[in-house]
Amino acid sequence: MTVRAGGRAARVKSRADTDAHPSAPAFIRRQIPNYELLGEEGLALIEQKGDQILAEIGMDIHDDVSVGLFRDAGATVDGDRVRFDPGHVRALCATAPAAFTQHARNPDRSVEIGGGNVVFAPAYGSPFVRDLAGGRRYGSLTDFENFVKLAYATPWLHHSGGTVCEPVDIPVNKRHLDMVYAHLRYSDKAFMGSVTQPTRAEDSVEMARIAFGAEFLESNCVILGNVNVNSPLVWDGAMTGAIRAYASANQAPVVVPFILGGAMGPVTLAGAIAQAHAETMVGVALGQLVRPGSPVIYGNFLSSMALRSGAPTFGTPEPAIGSLVVGQMARRVGLPLRCSGSFTTSKVLDGQAMLESAVSMQAAILCGANFILHSAGWLEGGLAMGYEKFIVDADFCGALHTYLRGIDLSDEQFALDGFHEVGPGKHFFGAQHTLRHYETAFWDSWTADNSSFEQWRDAGERRVEERASDKVAEMLAAYEPPPIDDGVDEALRDFVSHRKADMPDQWY
Amino acid sequence: MTVRAGGRAARVKSRADTDAHPSAPAFIRRQIPNYELLGEEGLALIEQKGDQILAEIGMDIHDDVSVGLFRDAGATVDGDRVRFDPGHVRALCATAPAAFTQHARNPDRSVEIGGGNVVFAPAYGSPFVRDLAGGRRYGSLTDFENFVKLAYATPWLHHSGGTVCEPVDIPVNKRHLDMVYAHLRYSDKAFMGSVTQPTRAEDSVEMARIAFGAEFLESNCVILGNVNVNSPLVWDGAMTGAIRAYASANQAPVVVPFILGGAMGPVTLAGAIAQAHAETMVGVALGQLVRPGSPVIYGNFLSSMALRSGAPTFGTPEPAIGSLVVGQMARRVGLPLRCSGSFTTSKVLDGQAMLESAVSMQAAILCGANFILHSAGWLEGGLAMGYEKFIVDADFCGALHTYLRGIDLSDEQFALDGFHEVGPGKHFFGAQHTLRHYETAFWDSWTADNSSFEQWRDAGERRVEERASDKVAEMLAAYEPPPIDDGVDEALRDFVSHRKADMPDQWY
Repeated sequence: MTVRAGGRAARVKSRADTDAHPSAPAFIRRQIPNYELLGEEGLALIEQKGDQILAEIGMDIHDDVSVGLFRDAGATVDGDRVRFDPGHVRALCATAPAAFTQHARNPDRSVEIGGGNVVFAPAYGSPFVRDLAGGRRYGSLTDFENFVKLAYATPWLHHSGGTVCEPVDIPVNKRHLDMVYAHLRYSDKAFMGSVTQPTRAEDSVEMARIAFGAEFLESNCVILGNVNVNSPLVWDGAMTGAIRAYASANQAPVVVPFILGGAMGPVTLAGAIAQAHAETMVGVALGQLVRPGSPVIYGNFLSSMALRSGAPTFGTPEPAIGSLVVGQMARRVGLPLRCSGSFTTSKVLDGQAMLESAVSMQAAILCGANFILHSAGWLEGGLAMGYEKFIVDADFCGALHTYLRGIDLSDEQFALDGFHEVGPGKHFFGAQHTLRHYETAFWDSWTADNSSFEQWRDAGERRVEERASDKVAEMLAAYEPPPIDDGVDEALRDFVSHRKADMPDQWY
Repeated sequence: MTVRAGGRAARVKSRADTDAHPSAPAFIRRQIPNYELLGEEGLALIEQKGDQILAEIGMDIHDDVSVGLFRDAGATVDGDRVRFDPGHVRALCATAPAAFTQHARNPDRSVEIGGGNVVFAPAYGSPFVRDLAGGRRYGSLTDFENFVKLAYATPWLHHSGGTVCEPVDIPVNKRHLDMVYAHLRYSDKAFMGSVTQPTRAEDSVEMARIAFGAEFLESNCVILGNVNVNSPLVWDGAMTGAIRAYASANQAPVVVPFILGGAMGPVTLAGAIAQAHAETMVGVALGQLVRPGSPVIYGNFLSSMALRSGAPTFGTPEPAIGSLVVGQMARRVGLPLRCSGSFTTSKVLDGQAMLESAVSMQAAILCGANFILHSAGWLEGGLAMGYEKFIVDADFCGALHTYLRGIDLSDEQFALDGFHEVGPGKHFFGAQHTLRHYETAFWDSWTADNSSFEQWRDAGERRVEERASDKVAEMLAAYEPPPIDDGVDEALRDFVSHRKADMPDQWY
């Protein structure tokens, strides 16, 4: 049943991919340093305050199995309240790997998560979608499939993501089956499964077993599940159940406190980071108690609020600074990091949207994030997935490939022969050195208009969202699905239809 | 004549300012580290290659006085070609101060340029202006004055800039008089003078003498002049004349190579940086030969090209990485740095404009730039100054005030009492800790819309440029000029009218 390694389909796909975007790597190996905001003293202080929160207040964990695991590991349990001695939770995290491979259906697309690697994944979880022609509407399975196809066709996204939008036309209890199927069928990049109920997490893992082979999963990660803390200081049973489902199958939960300062945590950054660090470590520790050595990602989602209205804000300076510290905390515990993305509260793809997105994405790049969910498409604080926003964000991800390469200081790059050839006051346009580097020099944007004012005016004064809209249409028209083994496809379809038949529809 | 220090006018203005924007500092003292991309080995290599360019090729300097100064200092001169032994130019730069104060007419607005300080100044030099209502048109003196007024009224800009747009309705040979007058009359922030001819530089300095007192200028910097290298490797006589005029008056030239890779320098970043470093140091050295110890700024303006069309590109990854290295080179020579700004090639304030602006501005922040020209208003690769763009960029400058503060790790910020009060699963909205920090927590944007989709829709689905347009109107309507001593104002007006009467109009 498994076709993963070296099968015909994989070979065919690999060649096709190479043709489509020759320069697209499976993921980025960063060649620039992380930005280290704090020194050891500051980091130790944050760790100590996180420990203090876990010792003095503790977390409520609404899941008897998880509470039992922590009790057996030596935590202090009082009903659902679990407290930890300082240093205990960090010690429980020690078995987690600092980096791991998430295997993709196409082995050339497998991603290394951790270390100096960067993986871009689309935005996640919005009930609405927006495009320039149709405006804002509820997401459908067709939209979901479109975004999977766009992420597959985008050279600068390395991952298919998870709930790229909510397919609201499918019953709540069956969506996960269609979503996982779409990731496996319409893409060959790595992907994320469901977490909304433990059984849905298990279905997701089971479908991965069909696609990759049950035996392969025993020793390899092929699916991620994004699991949120119910901040402040609560682990919900659905979420701990999902952690247990993924970890027991040796698959990777992404453990993410979601903190809007002033609501789910303090308005002050230091406290919010200490809290997030504590909450994340407890989730990581749970997975390690279920299966020591299983892969896991240290996640973070910090944002701010407009305090006059209570509305969440994104792309603001506080979470950007916070991300830098969070990156240091993740490295301190030795775990791969998920952080930030292209966030905005703007309802449309305007200057606000891209300013905020650039600020939050740059924070991800500087802080050393390894898995950057929400890299493309996010609008309205996550409530809408934008088609054109997806394209412009993905274009920025492309630029970041160049940024993360840093600077080449080899002799050829210094162009001394060029200076000798050109001399003072002449131009480098036709210089031999320029001709040698003409083809590869400079990042070339999909969507930026660099033409003159007159050219731009005579072409209809088009804005970036109009150019991106064209790109969406072009990419969807050119889309061809990656090959899949017929037997695997049939087995996946069978699984989906049987599971759907087993349950009545639930719409909420 | 001088009213600078402690006069009535200064006191009045200072109080008015405090009322208008209580939290606005005169400049930023950064509390986060610079981003250090390269280690010593890489920096030494760039320095060595720059030295090699100056030794093997040299620069053409079209100004006999400057060539004579370099000859006397030990350079090898062959006609206009000047060559330097390795290390010589850097040694000539050694007398320049690492930081200096540029005094403003309002002493509370004086800025420290260098060290860990950051000063934001408006964009510079565009012949066109654009606003939402009127579209694109040539700039006028009214537009110029409007931008001076907006920069004065903006708490997040520390400097009035220079040629904030070209007042195209005024003769070329007389514009500088109206521009300098506008900076002195409609603002009390520090400003920049003319550089387009040595006599215009001298007029600018003379007007500064009227406003600040001739004696004051002898030992204090009150005016900057932005001087461009004619890259590659040429110093034009107008520019060296301007350097000499500013330096001899103990005022600060900003020495800036303008390199679009592939045109005025190689397409490869390492070579362009080595070239820029060499060119800048020669300009700095010239000022030091004219007057050792006079203030100067190490400037940089690197950008890329769309190689298929030859069009300049901005906000791309290569110059962002280049800026990080340039910052390190400036610190290596021990000089204050001007670098980057809110650059874009977009013709309008759209997503492209703000994405590119954010990328280039973040590079300035990370690289340790001390004086950030082009912080607000830039469109179309510098050809147009946008009213709404100015507002959104200035708003981002405000956010960067918060970013550059970094993180406070005092006990109160960790909110342990808040966690004890709130406990797991409750919200921080009404917590005592939140109430204590409610007023000061979180950056509050001028232009971002953080309302819900429904609120935004019902309010007319307005985009950020529409909100910024309102802000322009509001700020210009509320504008009141800072006080000025009547005698000073009269003397400035006299100087302008006499100088204008001395010359026939020139229109090109």
